[in-house]
Amino acid sequence: MTLKFFFGPKTCALASRIALEEAGAAYEAVRLDMAGGQQRTADYLAVNPKGRVPALATPQGVLTETPAILAYIAQAYPQAKLAPSDDAFAFAQIQAFNSYLCSTVHINHAHKMRGYRWASEETSYADMKRKVPETMAESFALIEREMLVGPWAMGESYTIADPYLYTMARWLEGDGVDVARFPKVADHMRRMQERPAVQRAIAGDAA
Amino acid sequence: MTLKFFFGPKTCALASRIALEEAGAAYEAVRLDMAGGQQRTADYLAVNPKGRVPALATPQGVLTETPAILAYIAQAYPQAKLAPSDDAFAFAQIQAFNSYLCSTVHINHAHKMRGYRWASEETSYADMKRKVPETMAESFALIEREMLVGPWAMGESYTIADPYLYTMARWLEGDGVDVARFPKVADHMRRMQERPAVQRAIAGDAA
Ligand SMILES: N[C@@H](CCC(=O)N[C@@H](CS)C(=O)NCC(=O)O)C(=O)O
Ligand SMILES: N[C@@H](CCC(=O)N[C@@H](CS)C(=O)NCC(=O)O)C(=O)O
Repeated sequence: MTLKFFFGPKTCALASRIALEEAGAAYEAVRLDMAGGQQRTADYLAVNPKGRVPALATPQGVLTETPAILAYIAQAYPQAKLAPSDDAFAFAQIQAFNSYLCSTVHINHAHKMRGYRWASEETSYADMKRKVPETMAESFALIEREMLVGPWAMGESYTIADPYLYTMARWLEGDGVDVARFPKVADHMRRMQERPAVQRAIAGDAA
Repeated sequence: MTLKFFFGPKTCALASRIALEEAGAAYEAVRLDMAGGQQRTADYLAVNPKGRVPALATPQGVLTETPAILAYIAQAYPQAKLAPSDDAFAFAQIQAFNSYLCSTVHINHAHKMRGYRWASEETSYADMKRKVPETMAESFALIEREMLVGPWAMGESYTIADPYLYTMARWLEGDGVDVARFPKVADHMRRMQERPAVQRAIAGDAA
């Protein structure tokens, strides 16, 4: 089966693309012009009514939401062993990691450029923007101390939490946070960059 | 096995509690004094270093994050049939529903009372608070139009998306949104309230 993967460069969609590459999935990548607002055109809203990326069109329908797309890839390509299939707790731990990235880390980051989602005044946007280095650093301090087992997010096994963690960590520099403050995260980034699947996904993201 | 469930009244923890009741799980509920800040005491941070509810202590360790706890309950109590176990797409669709509730709906709501997470000025908090009726209504318009299949979130089968949707819908009134604007959501709330498991969870939440 060939999947259709809708993405914008430098967005959270990179996490899902890395997972597709790790799984050896056949997919066609469709790049949206995010700066030009293509995510809000009628054509794309017919794919994903939320007007966001990523979206993954499968033979059964369209999936959205990074944690859900990652779980799908892990379960639809079990031979890639991106998540345990027979341990409810271990699987849920991965989902907890990814849910934190989605609902806390990504949201912290979004307050830099997308303040208009939650407020209406320029002064509020500026205030939110100023706080991003602090909230991103706090989240990564928690990840470093409590969540990232090492060498991979969940320990010895590489899972769908790794591409997502890596994708968020890549935002740190632009958010004014020096990743060197978090040695385990920095080490994780280096390990990720050595993986051929990651290199292919990054090349495709930039293409 | 007996689980230990950490909650605060009227929080998102209700979703997990409903699922525990639906699954017939044996659990001990531990109520935190959220107004008094018990979620930030050393004792509780040892359970959940994020200082939030819900948390579910299982024999294998502690789980956090509503979408992860719900997935765990579905998989650990398969006889309750709260999620499909053999269809990667259908399972991921449920996770997508729950991820949207977690990363968009809950986050919209949180800007009413928790603006200090993302900004530092009183004027920004007030601005954020004013926008909550609008963002919550927008999210529920999308849910009504695109996501809630009916009668249950995913269609004919009751799943772990239902308690979570219901828990978020209960916040609408307090957020200044009349649920009557969304007939499918309103109907879903009524159906939920008829379920004995929901009634037990609400009674426990208020106890
Ligand atoms: N909860 C969603 C969030 C998706 C999201 O916000 N994507 C951003 C890019 S990182 C986007 O499409 N933004 C475009 C816009 O806001 O117009 C997920 O995790 O997939
Ligand atoms: N992403 C988490 C969010 C948990 C969360 O924010 N819980 C709130 C209650 S609804 C909380 O514990 N707030 C306490 C605080 O902020 O001090 C989840 O879905 O479980």
